Amino acid sequence: MNAITTEALAKKVMDWCDQLAAISSNPENISRFYLTPEHKRCNTLVAQWMREAGMETWVDAAGNLCGRYGAQEACAKTLILASHLDSIPNAGAYDGILGVLIAIAVVEQLYQNNITLPYAIDIIGFGDEEGTRFGSTLLGSRAVAGTWNPAWWKLKDRAGISLQKAFIDFGLQPENIHSAARNPDDLLAYLEVHIEQGPVLEDENLALGIVTAIAGARRFAIEIQGYAGHAGTVPMPMRKDALVGAALGIVLVEDVAKEFNVVATVGKIECGPGAVNVIPGHAKFTIDIRSGDDQLRDQALAKIQHELDLICIERNLTASWNEIHNAPAVVCADWMQSLQASVLCDMNLNPYKLMSGAGHDAMAMADICDVAMYFVRCKGGVSHHPDELVTVEDVALAIEALGNTLKKLAQ
Amino acid sequence: MNAITTEALAKKVMDWCDQLAAISSNPENISRFYLTPEHKRCNTLVAQWMREAGMETWVDAAGNLCGRYGAQEACAKTLILASHLDSIPNAGAYDGILGVLIAIAVVEQLYQNNITLPYAIDIIGFGDEEGTRFGSTLLGSRAVAGTWNPAWWKLKDRAGISLQKAFIDFGLQPENIHSAARNPDDLLAYLEVHIEQGPVLEDENLALGIVTAIAGARRFAIEIQGYAGHAGTVPMPMRKDALVGAALGIVLVEDVAKEFNVVATVGKIECGPGAVNVIPGHAKFTIDIRSGDDQLRDQALAKIQHELDLICIERNLTASWNEIHNAPAVVCADWMQSLQASVLCDMNLNPYKLMSGAGHDAMAMADICDVAMYFVRCKGGVSHHPDELVTVEDVALAIEALGNTLKKLAQ
Repeated sequence: MNAITTEALAKKVMDWCDQLAAISSNPENISRFYLTPEHKRCNTLVAQWMREAGMETWVDAAGNLCGRYGAQEACAKTLILASHLDSIPNAGAYDGILGVLIAIAVVEQLYQNNITLPYAIDIIGFGDEEGTRFGSTLLGSRAVAGTWNPAWWKLKDRAGISLQKAFIDFGLQPENIHSAARNPDDLLAYLEVHIEQGPVLEDENLALGIVTAIAGARRFAIEIQGYAGHAGTVPMPMRKDALVGAALGIVLVEDVAKEFNVVATVGKIECGPGAVNVIPGHAKFTIDIRSGDDQLRDQALAKIQHELDLICIERNLTASWNEIHNAPAVVCADWMQSLQASVLCDMNLNPYKLMSGAGHDAMAMADICDVAMYFVRCKGGVSHHPDELVTVEDVALAIEALGNTLKKLAQ
Repeated sequence: MNAITTEALAKKVMDWCDQLAAISSNPENISRFYLTPEHKRCNTLVAQWMREAGMETWVDAAGNLCGRYGAQEACAKTLILASHLDSIPNAGAYDGILGVLIAIAVVEQLYQNNITLPYAIDIIGFGDEEGTRFGSTLLGSRAVAGTWNPAWWKLKDRAGISLQKAFIDFGLQPENIHSAARNPDDLLAYLEVHIEQGPVLEDENLALGIVTAIAGARRFAIEIQGYAGHAGTVPMPMRKDALVGAALGIVLVEDVAKEFNVVATVGKIECGPGAVNVIPGHAKFTIDIRSGDDQLRDQALAKIQHELDLICIERNLTASWNEIHNAPAVVCADWMQSLQASVLCDMNLNPYKLMSGAGHDAMAMADICDVAMYFVRCKGGVSHHPDELVTVEDVALAIEALGNTLKKLAQ
C-alpha cells in the first residue's frame, strides 16, 4: 500500500479529535472523566486506532490505555509517548488527546513504512490528568511512575463514590495498582506533545515550541485583617481598610512577578462585611506563583511577603498567609531539548524554547525518566474552554517534528 | 418638688436606652423595625415618658411618635427636636433613640422648672430612618417633610408584606399619609442630637460637636472587563487581568479621596471566574463617595473616573459605571451653627464643627425648615454594632447643651 502523507495523517488526527469530542457524559459539551463509561468508550476507540497503527494494546492497572510498537530487538529500551485522555467539564477538543493521537499518527507512519527503531515505543493515554472527578490530578501518570499514594483510595467523587470503588466498577483491581508502575531501567525517555494552553507561540508566530521546564507552583490564601467602619463617618486617615491593603497586595504581586520574570496571579478575592457603605474590615485573596526556576520563584515570593508586611505595618493591618499548594519545577532533559532543537532547525523552524506554566503528565513521569515536551500553538492561547483550537497545518508540523525526533533518537 | 439635676437626667436617659434595647424582635440582640409590634411597644413606652415630661402625645399618620410641649402663646412657631426609634438588625443601643430621649429629658427639665418658651417644642420619634424593613430609608421624616413617594406603598419586606399592608396592620390609614406632613410656615427649625457614628470627636477628645453639613453621597457599581486566562501559561505582559485593574482602581479611590478631602470607600468586590489558578476576566466593585460639598465630591469623582479610564486604556480593559445612588449634601443652617457655637463656648467647651458622613432624618427635614445637629461622642467611633457606647457624662453635657440652646433660641 501507499504510505499515508503527513497532511493526510494530520487530517486524520483532527477527525479523531472530533470523534473523541463526541464521547462525553454531557451531550451539550465535552466532559470525559476518569473511570467512567466515557473513559471506557474512549479507551476502546483509541485502542482500535493504535492497533490499526500496528500496535499491541492493553489497559493497565490504573485504567491507562497503552499501546506498544516493538523495537528491532526484544531487549531494547522503551520511549514513552503520552498524554491524557480525560478532560475538565466543558472542555476543548485538544487538551491532552492531541498528544496521544499525534503519537499514534507518527507510529502509523512508521508502521506503513515498515520502519522499526532500536527502541520500543509505548504510547500511553493517561486516564486522569485533570483530576476532575476525584480532585487529585495526575492519577494516571502517578500510577505509571510508581508514586501512587494509597491515601487516594478514599478520595470521593461528587456522587460519594470512592476511587477504590470506581476502580472496581471499571473492572480494575485496586490491589494490583503497583503493576501499572514502569521500571525506570527499561525506559529511554518520556516525550509528550501538548497544546501550549497559552498565547506565546501564537504571539511569536510559531507552530511549535520546545518546553524547557514545567513550572513549580506555590499557592497561598492570604487574609488581611483591618477594622470595619462606616463609609461616611470615618475620615480617610483614620481607616484600617483591609480591602485597600489587599488591593495594594494585588498590584504588588503583578509588579514583583514582572520584576522577577515569573508568573503570579490573584484569582480570587472577597471582602467583608461586604456592603457598599461599610469600610471592609477583612479581605481574603489567593496568590498562585510559578516559575521554571524554584529559587527565582521563592525569591519573588519573599519579596511579595516582605513588601506586603510593610504595607500592613504602615496601615495598621495584619496579614496571615496559608500555603495551600507547593509543587517543585520539573526541568526537561537538556539532551532531549538539544535533540528537539536540531529537529526543528532541520525543518527550518525556529527552535523556540518556552516554559510550561501549566502542569502536565511529564511532571509525574520525571520521577522515573528524562522527560521532554513539544508545545503546539493553540488559537488565542485559549484552553480549558470549548473555543480551544489548533490548525491542521500545525498538527502536520507536530507529526513531522515528532517523527523526525524519533528518527534522530534512533541514530 | 425639687427639680431633677442634669446628672440624674443623664442617668435616666441611659436607663431609658436600656429599656428600649429590650424591645426587640430578636431576643439575642437589638432589632426594632418599622410598623412592627416592637415599634408599637416602643412608641407606647416613649409616649409615657413624654407625658411624664409634661407633653401631649400622639402617633402621626406615618407611625411616628409625637409629643408637644406648648409655647407661651398659642400662635407661636414650633421647634422640632427629633431622631429615630427604629434600628438596624443587631444594632447598638444609642443610634437614633439617644436623640429622642435627650430631647425628652430637656423638656422634662423645663417642665419641672415650670418654664415655657416663646415657641412650642415638638419631639418626634421617627418610626423609620434605617430603612431596614422596606429597604428605603427616612420613611418617617419623609412623611413629616411631605415628600412621601406613593411608589413606596408597593415596597415589600422579606415576608412579602407591602408597606401599604404594614400600615393597615399597624392601625394606620395609608390614604391619610399627607396629614403627617408639617406646614413649613409653622416651623422655627429642626434640631437633632445623634451619636457621631465616627471616631472624630473621640480623637479630638471632645464630648460634643456641631454638624456643618450632612454629606451628599453618590454610589456606583463598576465592572471591569478583561480576559480570563490560565494562571500558568499567560506571560505577565500579555495579560488583561480585570482584578489588577480593579485593584488599581481601589488604590486610586483612596488616593483621590485624600487629595480632595472627601471620603470614598470600596465596600464590595468580586471577580470571575474566581479560581485560584485562573486570571480574572472580569471584576466588579462599588464606590461610595461623600462630602459636605457636592461640587468637591463631583470633582474628586471626575478625577477617579478619568484616572480609571487611563488605567483601563493602558491595560486593554474596559470599565462600565452604573450609578446606584445620588443624594445631594444638606447644609446645616449658619445661624443655628452660630447659636450652637456660642452655647458650647458659654459651657467652656470647644465649639468643634464636623461634617456628618452618615445620613440622618435632618436630611429629609431640610426640605421644609432650617436644620441643625449636635453630635455626641461614641466610643471608638463604633455604631451599627452591639458595642456602640456613649458615656453618661457626655449625655449630661448633651442635655445641658440642648437645654442651653433652647434658652438661647428663646432670646
